[in-house]
This record gives sequence, structure tokens and C-alpha cells, in this order.
Amino acid sequence: MENNTAATQAKVSIITIGDELLIGQVVDTNSAWMAQQLNLAGFNVHHRVAVGDTWEDIWEALNQESERASIILITGGLGPTADDITKPLLCEYFGGKLVQHAPTLAHLEQLFSQVLKRPLTDRNRKQAEVPDVCTVLLNERGTAPGMLFEKNNRLFISMPGVPHEMQGLMQKHVLPLLQQRFNPGIVEHRYLLTTGIGESDLADRIQTFETALPDFIKLAYLPHYGMVRLRLTARGPQNNAGIIATLEEQFALLQTYITDVMVVNEDITMQALVGKLLKAQHKTLATAESCTGGYIAHMITAMPGASSWFTGSVVSYSNQAKERILGVTPETFTTTGAVSEETVRQMLSGVLQVMQTDYAIAVSGIMGPDGGTTEKPVGTVWVAVGNKERTEVKKFQFRYDRARNIEMTAVNALNMLRKLIETENNI
Amino acid sequence: MENNTAATQAKVSIITIGDELLIGQVVDTNSAWMAQQLNLAGFNVHHRVAVGDTWEDIWEALNQESERASIILITGGLGPTADDITKPLLCEYFGGKLVQHAPTLAHLEQLFSQVLKRPLTDRNRKQAEVPDVCTVLLNERGTAPGMLFEKNNRLFISMPGVPHEMQGLMQKHVLPLLQQRFNPGIVEHRYLLTTGIGESDLADRIQTFETALPDFIKLAYLPHYGMVRLRLTARGPQNNAGIIATLEEQFALLQTYITDVMVVNEDITMQALVGKLLKAQHKTLATAESCTGGYIAHMITAMPGASSWFTGSVVSYSNQAKERILGVTPETFTTTGAVSEETVRQMLSGVLQVMQTDYAIAVSGIMGPDGGTTEKPVGTVWVAVGNKERTEVKKFQFRYDRARNIEMTAVNALNMLRKLIETENNI
Repeated sequence: MENNTAATQAKVSIITIGDELLIGQVVDTNSAWMAQQLNLAGFNVHHRVAVGDTWEDIWEALNQESERASIILITGGLGPTADDITKPLLCEYFGGKLVQHAPTLAHLEQLFSQVLKRPLTDRNRKQAEVPDVCTVLLNERGTAPGMLFEKNNRLFISMPGVPHEMQGLMQKHVLPLLQQRFNPGIVEHRYLLTTGIGESDLADRIQTFETALPDFIKLAYLPHYGMVRLRLTARGPQNNAGIIATLEEQFALLQTYITDVMVVNEDITMQALVGKLLKAQHKTLATAESCTGGYIAHMITAMPGASSWFTGSVVSYSNQAKERILGVTPETFTTTGAVSEETVRQMLSGVLQVMQTDYAIAVSGIMGPDGGTTEKPVGTVWVAVGNKERTEVKKFQFRYDRARNIEMTAVNALNMLRKLIETENNI
Repeated sequence: MENNTAATQAKVSIITIGDELLIGQVVDTNSAWMAQQLNLAGFNVHHRVAVGDTWEDIWEALNQESERASIILITGGLGPTADDITKPLLCEYFGGKLVQHAPTLAHLEQLFSQVLKRPLTDRNRKQAEVPDVCTVLLNERGTAPGMLFEKNNRLFISMPGVPHEMQGLMQKHVLPLLQQRFNPGIVEHRYLLTTGIGESDLADRIQTFETALPDFIKLAYLPHYGMVRLRLTARGPQNNAGIIATLEEQFALLQTYITDVMVVNEDITMQALVGKLLKAQHKTLATAESCTGGYIAHMITAMPGASSWFTGSVVSYSNQAKERILGVTPETFTTTGAVSEETVRQMLSGVLQVMQTDYAIAVSGIMGPDGGTTEKPVGTVWVAVGNKERTEVKKFQFRYDRARNIEMTAVNALNMLRKLIETENNI
């Protein structure tokens, strides 16, 4: 393989190291995060490999990945325990010897005395040892430094497996370094979010559009929670304004095919979109959650800054809580049951009252695996959204497992609210 | 590599197929789930690989993985869209031709007419086509069937990438088949959960124990949310009662080393443990959540059956909600602030009152990235747990990102409640 310098040719392989990945103890979120960042920056990940803390497997992975990629990113295997063999292996693989790295040791001393307030043990001190054939990338967020090696025109970068440490190294050192070295040129993305249409129906509908796209623009389908995001990506040499102009034209054209199913033409989650709409209108939201058990509130509060428009939630998991806090009447439970239109209507007006918000969402359903009946099988969900003037109520029937039924309820409830806000404000 | 039939030798490789894995759109949870199930059943996963929807990459992965493993499990690439090339590739790789599989077609017809209530399109009908050289594993949960191939004493099993479909196939067909074919013998696990001690300190403490373990028992460290789970696994031929007896002895011995940090000696999450304790005492729980924004309630309600002991949560994200529903006094906010001992104490008694439960948890903190001050930096969290008679309050200082600060708050709050219940009931 020749030494490519154009980004469209610079192939990346990711190697993750650790027994915990092979016994399923840990879900590999690092690879996905890295792939996403690299992709956005114009680099193609061609291969991802996970190996255990085993000398020959790591060695073989380094050999094999350097045959298929010019950039090899490695995470994990750098901890202070005995089974972490990556550092001595890298030392031998690249023909160096371990030496103490003074700036890393100074960083460790400062970290332990100032932040962790624990004595620096010998075990920890060893983390400042690095192969003398690498360039050290200082890890401000932790103890194990990043290490950059070069061999046969291949770039190898080893990072710790702790997600926020790896992310810090990627943002501060690795991505800027790759962009400088491999010059990806223009890499521009445009996103839109659709709802209410499956991936294959969407593909059928925009087939003509997709076929007619110029070579330098690619379309990607990104399904998520029963919605599909579409992404157009344009690539080309730097300083070519025509590329961006064509991307904008094609993005506008794409939208004409899907007016009825398009939610928004930007890269944003449903909860962030709802937040944006509410903030723009200076309105507030609360939720009353039975079957989602706080998940909608969690999705919202996982976003920094949600407190400016989200006041909270009444997770009324028991009927008593629905009665006492939200004012659902006991008769409702006996006549229509807790999973019913009447219940979510009463929950909605109850939470609007108690939280004093402009808008609210109320959900009640049966998430499974138990609790279903012939009349109301598992996956039956009632959702109400609205304000004091207007209420929308809808029944859903999901067919998934408990976790996914909860997710689908949350996203669909937020989407109902999104539509109602847009209708009310003529957006 | 010889054809091994003993489970300790039966190596497994997992190949996941799909461009979405290489652009970071999807986190690969399938591999972790599969690895976990295989590991529990006594099979060692040695290698995991992710490749895109590219003919030569998939082909190469099949070649390479069959050199290192005797069982190759493949997920993904079986959808109805044009970029899913796995099925024709498998057909060519194993030297077969596509034929219609009558039972799968019958299943599709039934699925579309009875459950999905949509017409069966040609695109969908094609999913009933399979290579004539495979054994079909019927996928009851979806449209794409599982396919089993054999070549050069290697077993290849292809499954769809939809998690609950893959899981159904693994449980119903793949795991039983592997167990029958490769006879893993005895594979027994014992677990315990520790808290308040790091992985490397724990390793130092039980070094003598670990070194003295017999060959057929392995110890694994499984860190999770600032806690560490330990697992002992014994393996050996079927019908060897001595193996289990030794495992029990070693498990009892291990516990003597860590009495002070052990939470429980079984395989259970913190939230499930709290639920188990509460159920045993016929007691109920509610939460009052500010900074965790409903996450504790979500962790609890993600478990089926939580409604027998969990009544709900007041997610009081705004100070108004803390005042109106939980009765926190306005003076508290002005004198000590919303993130304070006084606030969580008032939240606790407020939620005990309004939810009428035996126990409650109340949390308030600053999760970041913004909102920190010199006095109360990001990561400052106050937690109160208790009942009408007894309250425990504690301040935490976490040093992570927003998502992890939320998780750490939740687990530590549940652990505080666990200790209080155990103390009150002399457990």
C-alpha cells in the first residue's frame, strides 16, 4: 500500500485492547465515538478490531492493521495492573526501551498531590515510563499518556481506554495532528431528520435523487429510534467553493422529496429540537411519566442547559402517585384503567397545574415483559401532550422489548409535542 | 489449527458487518452481549472485528477469522436494502446458490399479514432466499433468518444485526447448538460486588489468594460505575463434583479478604439489590431528583416488576418544583443554595410525605459542564437517604463529565440507601 496523503485515501484502523471487551463486560463505546469524530473530520475507518490482553494477539493485530491502514489508533491496555501488557509490547514492536518521561511524571505528581490527594505509589509512577521511540501526547485527564509511533510510513497512536481521557487526547492532539498531516480538504456535512417512514421506503422514494448525485457527494441513512436521519457529505480539495455551493443545492433538492416526513433540516436530536423550540418561544415544559419511569426527564436533563426550559417531572409509577400528585380520579382507574386516554388527559392537566409550566407531556403504558392483557397487550401506550388550551392524545402499539418500548415512547411523545408547538406557532 | 472439541479450546471470533459501525453511527452492543453469553456458557471469544458493507473486507474477515477460531459468529448486513451484500457473498464464499426457503416465506407471510398488517413486498419476499448450502435458523422475531455454514471444520453462523432478533436466535438456536457440539463441560461462576475500593488496591489485597487459586478456577475483575465486581469461574469435565466443591470453598475464602468492602455475594446490580432488600421487608421507595433528572427512577423502572416497591419520583429540576411539590423553603435557597445539605434534607422529607413511602432518596448537585463555582465546583453533589426515623446525608465530589457524574450520583445514592436498610434490619 502506498503512502497516501489525500484524506479520501487515508485509511484508519482502530484496535481496542482488553479482556473486558471479549467477555462482554464492557460495551465498546470508544470505537463508535472515535469513528464518528474521524468520519466528521474526513477520515475513513475501514476496520475495527478488539483483542484481549494477550501478547501475540496484540502483536498480530498491529501487523495486520498496518497492512490495511495508514493510521492505526489503539485504545486500552495502559492501566497500572499486571495484565496490561500493551506498553512493553509497543516498546518491543517499535524497537525502543522504556524511559521515564519527565513532563508526565511532573503531571502525575501534581495530579496526585493536588487533585486525587493520595500518595503517588510506585505502580502509578511507572505510568510515566514510555518507550524512547515514541512522541508523548500528554494526557491532562488521567495518568497514562498517549504515545505516537511511526513505522513503514504508518502512524500508530496508543491511547488509554478510559473514555473521557481518550476523548481529551483525540480532541487536543490526535485529530489536529491527523488533519495537519493528511490534509483532508473540504469535508462538509448536511443533516436532516425524518419521522414516520422506514429506511427502505425512504430509499425507494429518493432513489432518483441518490442516483443523480455527483461523485463527490455521498448520502448516508442513519436510522435512530424509529426515525431516520439523512446525511449528505461533500468532499474535495481545499478552496473549491463550487463544492459547497453544489452541496447546498443538492441539500435543498433532497428536502423537496420528503417535505411531509421531514422533522428538521439540521443535526439535532428530538429532545434538543424540542428544547430549541421552547427556548425560542420562552416557554417551559414538565413531564408526567408512568411507563417511561423518568426516562423522558433523563433524556432532557442529560443535555446541559435544559434547566432554562425544563422544570421537572412527576414520575407517577404507582396509581397512588397519579392520584395524590396529579389528581387522577380513582374512578378513572376503575372504569378505564391506568393505561387509557382518560388517565393521560388527567395526568397532563395535573402536571401542568402542579409544575406551572406552559407545556407538558403525559405517558402511561405497558412496557413488558409482563402486565399485558388481550385488550391491552404489552407495548400499548397512551400519550398526551399539550398546554391549557390544546391537547393532543394518541395511542401507540409498540412491539419491542422493555428497553426499546421505553425509548420509542419517549421519542414519539417528544415528537408529538414538537408538532403541536410548531402548529401553534405556525412554524 | 486443529479441530478442537473441548470448550476450553473452542475459540470464537465475532464479525460485525455494517458501514454504520465504521462511521460511529451505532455503538456495537451486539458484540458485548454475544461475548457475555458465550463467556458464561464456557466459550472464549478471542477476536472481534467490525467491517463495512464492502465485498473484499467481509471476504477477508471470513478468511482471517477462520484461521484463528473454530466458531465464527457474524451479525449484520442482512437487511432488505441494496447495500446489504452479505447474503450473496456468503453464497459465493461457501459455494452455493440462492434458493427460496419455504418455512421462512411462510413465516414472512404470516408476519406481514397478522402482525405488521402491511403487504409483503418483493423486497421483503427476497429475505426468504437463502444459500442452498446452509442450515436455516428460523428468526421468529424478524424477517432475516439465521444461517449456519460449515467449511474446513469451522462453523460459521450469520445472524441479523437487529439486537433483539440476534438475541432470540442466539438463545433459541446458537447457544444450545454450540453447547451440544463442543461440550463445554462444567462452567460455573460465582460473583460478588465491592464498593469503596479501586481495582488496583483490590488486586494488591487479594494477590495471595489469586496466586494460590487452582488452575481450573479463574478470577476476573469487572469494574463498573466506581464499583468492582469479582468473578470466580471454575471449568472442568462434566460430572466432576469436586470442581464445584472447590469453587465454593474458594469463593468463601475470597470473601474473608474483603469483608469490609463487599456489598453482596451474588450477581446483581445495585438497583436490583436495593429492590430485593425492599421487597423482602415489604417496604416502598420514592426518589426526589434534582441533578440526576430522573435517572435514578429510570434505572429502577428499567427493571420489570419494580412497581411492587417503587412508587415514583419527583424530578424537581427547578427550585419552584422543589418548593411547590416537596416543600423546600425559599429561605433555604437564599441561605444555603439549592445544592446543600439543608435542601436535600427538605427534599427527602417532602418526597416521603407526598409519595407516602417507607424510604426515599434525595439528590441535588452540579453535573457540569457549567454551573460550578469556586465553593461548589462541578461534581459537587449532596445526597440524603432515609425514612421518617433516620436520615443519612453525604456530600460527594465527582470529577467526571456530565453523563458520568449523573451515573456516579445515582449508584452512590442507591448504595447509601442499601447500607441504611441493612443497618436498620441488622442484615
